[in-house]
Amino acid sequence: MYPDSLKQLIESFKYLPGIGEKTAERLAFAVFDMDPDKVGFFVESMQNVKNKVHYCCECNSLTENDICSICADKNRNKDILCVVEDVKSVFLFERLGTFNGYYHVISGLISPLDGINPEDIGIDKLIARIKKNKYKEIVLAFKPSIEGETTTLYIKRILEGLDITVTKIASGIPIGADMEYIDALTLEQALRDRQEIS
Amino acid sequence: MYPDSLKQLIESFKYLPGIGEKTAERLAFAVFDMDPDKVGFFVESMQNVKNKVHYCCECNSLTENDICSICADKNRNKDILCVVEDVKSVFLFERLGTFNGYYHVISGLISPLDGINPEDIGIDKLIARIKKNKYKEIVLAFKPSIEGETTTLYIKRILEGLDITVTKIASGIPIGADMEYIDALTLEQALRDRQEIS
Repeated sequence: MYPDSLKQLIESFKYLPGIGEKTAERLAFAVFDMDPDKVGFFVESMQNVKNKVHYCCECNSLTENDICSICADKNRNKDILCVVEDVKSVFLFERLGTFNGYYHVISGLISPLDGINPEDIGIDKLIARIKKNKYKEIVLAFKPSIEGETTTLYIKRILEGLDITVTKIASGIPIGADMEYIDALTLEQALRDRQEIS
Repeated sequence: MYPDSLKQLIESFKYLPGIGEKTAERLAFAVFDMDPDKVGFFVESMQNVKNKVHYCCECNSLTENDICSICADKNRNKDILCVVEDVKSVFLFERLGTFNGYYHVISGLISPLDGINPEDIGIDKLIARIKKNKYKEIVLAFKPSIEGETTTLYIKRILEGLDITVTKIASGIPIGADMEYIDALTLEQALRDRQEIS
């Protein structure tokens, strides 16, 4: 009943995560009403993301060049490498502006139950990079979960005997959170990881 | 920090209604991960919606041709015209599959408070079409609201003396709704518009 192009655009929006029929219709109508220049910009950005953006050959983050702007930046702290589970985490940490080392993105976390083993998430490439670059500290920054913990322990074990400090980001009670809404596991962890007040 | 194309695609998604920064980021990453063929189809649909789809010169609904498929269909009931407030309503009614007349889309509803007067929503074109086509019944299908009511009364008044039956769709209690959650105005209307059980 809709004109064909509109029908096709509705289908296209449904490719995106969390977009159902109703939302797709609303968005497709919005595109019809949108300023032609904006649609042009939208279309071009979409094509560019697909054609120009790729993984950094060094750290697996996203870039339009051979290596990303972080890996290319020689002024960062060469002693420290932060390992994250996805590209988004790189941008989350960078937005903080407080971490000055380099990053390495692995492809997810080890999860034997889901059939995801170390070789599936690019641990080999990570280890090779660590050995080549002589980092002093490796920060493991995965989400606190069974998979995160498994991956942390696996990497820690592989790096044993290499004279590298392996750390992981703290898990505990989020700042501003109400104590009574914190789950038992987090509370337990926060208690176990208590720190002396300096 | 994001590669430029990704940053631009995030901005583009934010042009759409209801899409904020976080969702735009999630959708832009989804486009990066999407099958290239699908991105191609998406881009093409977006361009086509902008370049090929336009308003039907007869009824103001959307079409890729001179007149839309409904206006072009000579087998529909020529005696009845349903007037709706936006293009989406046409597709809503068509999906029912029970209405067999023609449609006319006006551009919104009269709302003196918002400075929207009859001449702003194309009432002239509607009246001209009604006079030319000799319909027997005009169904006004606007949302039940002050604006809907104002527009309904305005059109009704203009058509007085033209020997045309002017009707409006029923408002009342939605089927399946819980009586206790129905607002007082709707309840009052439902009571006033009670129908004899045949």
